[in-house]
Parts: sequence; C-alpha cells; structure tokens
Amino acid sequence: MTRNELIHQIKTKRSFLCVGLDTDIDKIPQHLLDHEDPVFEFNRQIIAATADLCVAYKPNIAFYESRGVAGWKSLQKTWAALPKDCLSIADAKRGDIGNTSKMYAKAFFEQQTSGLGFDAITIAPYMGHDSVKPFLEFSGKWGIVLALTSNAGGLDFQVGRDVNGQQLFEQVIRQTNTWGDVTNLMYVVGATRGEAFATIRKHAPNHFLLVPGVGAQGGSLSEVCKYGMNTDCGLLVNATRSIIYASKGTDFAEKAREEALALQQQMEHELLEKGIIS
Amino acid sequence: MTRNELIHQIKTKRSFLCVGLDTDIDKIPQHLLDHEDPVFEFNRQIIAATADLCVAYKPNIAFYESRGVAGWKSLQKTWAALPKDCLSIADAKRGDIGNTSKMYAKAFFEQQTSGLGFDAITIAPYMGHDSVKPFLEFSGKWGIVLALTSNAGGLDFQVGRDVNGQQLFEQVIRQTNTWGDVTNLMYVVGATRGEAFATIRKHAPNHFLLVPGVGAQGGSLSEVCKYGMNTDCGLLVNATRSIIYASKGTDFAEKAREEALALQQQMEHELLEKGIIS
Repeated sequence: MTRNELIHQIKTKRSFLCVGLDTDIDKIPQHLLDHEDPVFEFNRQIIAATADLCVAYKPNIAFYESRGVAGWKSLQKTWAALPKDCLSIADAKRGDIGNTSKMYAKAFFEQQTSGLGFDAITIAPYMGHDSVKPFLEFSGKWGIVLALTSNAGGLDFQVGRDVNGQQLFEQVIRQTNTWGDVTNLMYVVGATRGEAFATIRKHAPNHFLLVPGVGAQGGSLSEVCKYGMNTDCGLLVNATRSIIYASKGTDFAEKAREEALALQQQMEHELLEKGIIS
Repeated sequence: MTRNELIHQIKTKRSFLCVGLDTDIDKIPQHLLDHEDPVFEFNRQIIAATADLCVAYKPNIAFYESRGVAGWKSLQKTWAALPKDCLSIADAKRGDIGNTSKMYAKAFFEQQTSGLGFDAITIAPYMGHDSVKPFLEFSGKWGIVLALTSNAGGLDFQVGRDVNGQQLFEQVIRQTNTWGDVTNLMYVVGATRGEAFATIRKHAPNHFLLVPGVGAQGGSLSEVCKYGMNTDCGLLVNATRSIIYASKGTDFAEKAREEALALQQQMEHELLEKGIIS
C-alpha cells in the first residue's frame, strides 16, 4: 500500500485506527476452542467486526511464533483474511546483519516463499544501517523503525543523550531517515510519550508514526494528536487489548466493535478539528 | 545447560567453537534437493561431521522463517537433532514489551508449546529492561544480549558516547548485567571489534561472550583471545559460512569438518597457552 493510498483510506474511513491482533490462545473466549484453529477464528471475527472502522491491522508475531508450526499457520490464514484496503503490519521487531535482514524481509513480504505478504514490518534499529536497509528495498512495502517505545524499558537506552545533547531516539530518526523516505519508512512512537512527539516532529515532520500505547497502556489520544498529527494525519494509532479483549464472552466481536467505534469517533473528531476531513 | 556444564564441555572438547546453521536452501549442494527436507538433511550431515569439535550450534532463525511453515518444521527437526552436550542457541535477536518478550521466550524455550527447546536466545536490547528480563526467567536457559555487533552498522549507534563518555554498548552491558548474572546472561561481541574486547571485559569480566565474525567476516581469533579470554575461557566463537559452505559438492560435510577442525586446533592452542587446559 502506497502513502497516497493510506492517506486516502484515512480520509475515507475517517479513522487512523490500527487494530492489534496479539491473539493469545489462553485469553480468547472458551467457546472458540472447539474450532479447528481457534486463534484464526477469533481473528476472523474481530476483523469482520472492525474492518470498516480501522485502516490497519497489526498482528504481533510473538503470539503466533510461541505456538510453533500451528501458530505460523494461524498467522498465514490471518494475513490472508486481512482486507486489502487496510495496511497489514507484521509487528516483528526484526533486525540482523544485511544478508539475514534480507531473509526476514522475505519472511514477511514475499508470499511465494513464506506464505506471508505483509505491507509493513517493525524493525529494531540497534544494529544500524545494514540491518535496516534490506527492509526498505521492497517496492510498495514499509519499514517501521522503533524510535521511542511505549514500555517502561523505553527509558533505559532510548532517551540517553549523546555528547551533542541528542537523545538516542533522535539519533535513530535522523540517521534512518537518510536510508528511506516518507514513502517507505515510518517510526514507532509510544502514545505514553506525549510531550516527545514535538521533538519527533522536528526530525520527521512528514513521516507516518505508528503509535501503540493507547488503551490498556494508558496513552492519551488527544495528546498524541496535539503534538503528533501533521497535515496528512501522519498517525496510525494502535489499540490491542482494549479492543480484542473487550469481552471474554460470545459477544467478544460485538464488544470489540464498540471499542473500535469509540476510538474511530474520537479520531474523526480530531481529523475534523485539524481540517484534514470535512 | 549450566555455566559449569558449558565450561566442562569446553575443557573436554578442547574447543569453544560454535557452528552457525544459517542454512539457505539456495546455497546447499544440489544433490540434497531430492530429500524431503533438504535444509534439515544438510544440517543433519553438518552436525554429524562437527559435533565432536564444537560446544554450541546456532541456527539463525531468519533462514528458517523465510520459508514459512516448511522452514519452521526444518528448524524443529534441526533443534531435535542437536547433540545434548552442545549449547543450542536460537539466533533470533528478539525483544518486545514484557508480555510479548515472554511469548518469544516461550517460542524458543518451551518445547511443549512451540516444538523448540533451545538453551539460549539472542536478544536486541533497544527496548530496555522489560524487554530483556522475561528471557532471563527460565531455569537453565540463557539470554545473549547484543552489545557490539560485527556488522558495519554496528558503528551507527552502538559506539555513540553519552554525556559521561560511555559508549552505548557499555551502557547496555552495565545495565543489563544488573538484570541477570554470569549464569544466565551472555553478550554478543563481534570478532571484528578486537580492541573493544578490553573495554567489554572491564564491564563484564566473567560473562561468556558469543563472538561471531571469525571466518567470512574477517575477524581474528587470536585478537579475540588476547583481549577477550578469561580464566574460564569465557568465549564462544562462532563460524558459519566458512564451515557450512566450505564445499558445494557431495563432500560438503567432510570439508565442513576440515574447517571446523582447523578452528578447533587453533582454539586448543589458545586454551593451552592460557593454562585453561593442559
């Protein structure tokens, strides 16, 4: 999916919601466990209930990999079931030396070899340019680099200042955005880092930001929009647990829709306020 | 495998060699392609030819994941075929927020859920304490944190100095070694960083270091030993391409053994020189 197509989807759906599919077989409703593939059945129903309210889906790969071959099969079926008008993001946080990062890119981008053809993948930047660039060399695909993450450990290394007073996440953004551009590179910035969005926007005014941490993690959507939104929106805000685990009963998909709808309505309000839609 | 068991193996085998199993289906000998699982058959023969010369095996997960379900099956069979007197390392470079890192730990450590029961996993430290600690909470298992990697991009962020003059890889070592200890935590340090081993040993005198970059990447074994070896050896030196792709013919396993033997003999010499064996 291209940048223009993504912006078109945001304006059409009046939403910049990304739904996380971190589906834990121990947390899904009991009645689904009779299905041949309960994780896929859960995802299928969540997708059906939310597809018109969001512009992206983001399965976190750990939840699938932890179940080995069975998990990988659930992931393939889930990817295949994602609507083509939504950006599909493999939240994998990969990164390795050059020839190895290329293998990871094939794993998530090249359907003919791996069975998966995601539009985007999240990338850990610690190993530098030859670990990041291979993900940016696939036409129509996106690399989403971890910049300032939402978790407590995000403050251990990412905000350390160098001798020039630049924090590590700033150095990561400044360097990586010479390796890609606004058409193939995004950044992960946690919603819990409200005030840092202004700093991020100094270094990356036009890039899309993937923003987890709204909902269960406590980030504020209005703060994120205040400091992070640009004239193209420039945000994909992710919610996972607050949506997919809104209910543990047979009404889980319906309750997931209610949560997604509430977020979509807040997002529509923000898009109207900023004049991005009318 | 415990630290004492690992040291015992090093002394018994007179070797601290780790063989990388980054098996690319496009690079293995043609005659193996008739097998039901060519990648596993290649690994099986490499393992049989080298098991008495090395103390660890390290499949890089990208090479398996790039082949989807088929690759995951090859990985499960490979893990099951690893000799129990060798440390099995999943070179996965994972790291995510706490509940997700725990899922990755299950993926590589908990055989009953994923089909894989590796002894160790490599970890990307960018996301900090809650991304690293879940890997250190499994009895008898190891987390191996990226510190100073062998690739060119290792110089992009890892050596940046903070306001106190500490390089990022030093900060990573100093912080992470408060989260684990010498019995469950190692560091990745590239063999191409000879002079930096002295700095590493200031911060982690007793930890084991996993050292890739000897062989195809050009690192020097004698430099690594000069600056990095401690009284327990404290090193696992990895070679991959120079061993597993020593020949593209039907003699690939025999040639792999010759390369592994040459390295083992150099390692025996270093262990004798340092008085670790007699």
